[in-house]
Amino acid sequence: MKKIAYLGPAGSYSEQAAIERCNSCEYVPVESIPMVASVVASGGADEGVVPIENSIEGAVTFTVDLLIHDSDLMITGETIVPIKQCLSAKDPVSLEDIEVVFSHPQSLSQCREYLGRNLPQAELVASLSNSKAVEEMKNSLARAAAISSQRAANINNVVVLRTGIEDFSNNQTRFVILSRVDSLPTGDDKTSLCFEFYDDSPGILSNVLTEFASRGINLEKIESRPNKKRLGLYVFLLDIQGHKQDAPVLQAVEALKSQVGMLKILGSYPKHRTLLEQK
Amino acid sequence: MKKIAYLGPAGSYSEQAAIERCNSCEYVPVESIPMVASVVASGGADEGVVPIENSIEGAVTFTVDLLIHDSDLMITGETIVPIKQCLSAKDPVSLEDIEVVFSHPQSLSQCREYLGRNLPQAELVASLSNSKAVEEMKNSLARAAAISSQRAANINNVVVLRTGIEDFSNNQTRFVILSRVDSLPTGDDKTSLCFEFYDDSPGILSNVLTEFASRGINLEKIESRPNKKRLGLYVFLLDIQGHKQDAPVLQAVEALKSQVGMLKILGSYPKHRTLLEQK
Repeated sequence: MKKIAYLGPAGSYSEQAAIERCNSCEYVPVESIPMVASVVASGGADEGVVPIENSIEGAVTFTVDLLIHDSDLMITGETIVPIKQCLSAKDPVSLEDIEVVFSHPQSLSQCREYLGRNLPQAELVASLSNSKAVEEMKNSLARAAAISSQRAANINNVVVLRTGIEDFSNNQTRFVILSRVDSLPTGDDKTSLCFEFYDDSPGILSNVLTEFASRGINLEKIESRPNKKRLGLYVFLLDIQGHKQDAPVLQAVEALKSQVGMLKILGSYPKHRTLLEQK
Repeated sequence: MKKIAYLGPAGSYSEQAAIERCNSCEYVPVESIPMVASVVASGGADEGVVPIENSIEGAVTFTVDLLIHDSDLMITGETIVPIKQCLSAKDPVSLEDIEVVFSHPQSLSQCREYLGRNLPQAELVASLSNSKAVEEMKNSLARAAAISSQRAANINNVVVLRTGIEDFSNNQTRFVILSRVDSLPTGDDKTSLCFEFYDDSPGILSNVLTEFASRGINLEKIESRPNKKRLGLYVFLLDIQGHKQDAPVLQAVEALKSQVGMLKILGSYPKHRTLLEQK
């Protein structure tokens, strides 16, 4: 059976993405995003699922930096998971009686307005993950609540008090699938690549983008990340339409090579389609 | 005396940036980045200091989103602070005897390799800020340590065990100064602006960048942020060379207006110069 690694524990949004990717696989929870990559690289799993972008927070920079600097895996797919934050407690309790709320700082921040309106009295306490928050809530002596996915609450047998408490209702996370092997063209693909310049003369980025635009290749996304050598120097990450074997993409990448210092193709893969679009 | 608001408490890197901005001001610590902006907007302070970019982690997305969506303040300056993480405890203690390390998850992540090499036995516990981590360490019954700035350790009268434990030695954070009033041209300025497109046709971003490049205006930085309405739609944030009153910048911005949906100038301000460059 195909093995698929994800950022655990069970109940995480990454697990949901793994299930959406493949609903009869063996799921392998691991402890960190780099470990997802290393388990796949060493053959301990066939594929790995890592979060790369959230509709509210933006890039998952940890994953982006891993793909740029520390991994030779290919992106072979993507999937999008809606983020629905859920408030849970050990027993049914009124919101105004809750003294402490546990969650990962990012989840606390995603529910900031809701918490300010509905639990202004509660102390906010940081946890290292949302699943850990549910455990800490269960062990707390105070009247405590936790913010996590509905699935993490269910797995831990706690009482769901409210669902969908995130401040922005269109909260979604895009995950990418990592593999040791390439994905073949399907006719509706995208390609992720990154590059770095030798210097920062005016116009160099616009020249590069023109290589794609002049060939009718749509740019879906551009992201800049620090190159980690000096403040103000960046690596650019692009998502473009088309497969790297398509002639226009091939030509644009060739033209790029003479203009940039480092160039790395992270993978070509079928675009995620929502259920609506698949009909 | 001029009042300058910053993300407190005393001992934070934001306080260091405030002191670097102005060494005989009244410093006003506040609890969050949005509160820095609202205190300045309401006249409770003349200026505010907020982190916007780190050389390792990249954009401080919270600040970038605030400037794009929720603030009419102008950026009137920038300053760069080196980040030196410091390990402290209540008493002098050997690293191998430490059972727990408190810090904000971002600081734990910045010291990941150091901790794995030198304190593999220690449990990592998340705090809401580095200053809070020092307090929690002081109150802990375990043999605990905290990661924070040296200043936060000194203010809290704890023992500094090690300094400079961050994994990347060139760790720096850029802060911007927010104000209700504009900064006048100095001859060595940069301008921050953001915009959003109506649609995502091929080449639209390269057309925009060409407006700057063709006028010899160097692009210092480009950042994309989710527009928070739909996954895959972005607001672009640009830092360009020159003041918004300079003729080439004025012309480029005029040319942009017909091509973009939303356009907002966040401010023109003198470039940060290191002590070396100032000589």
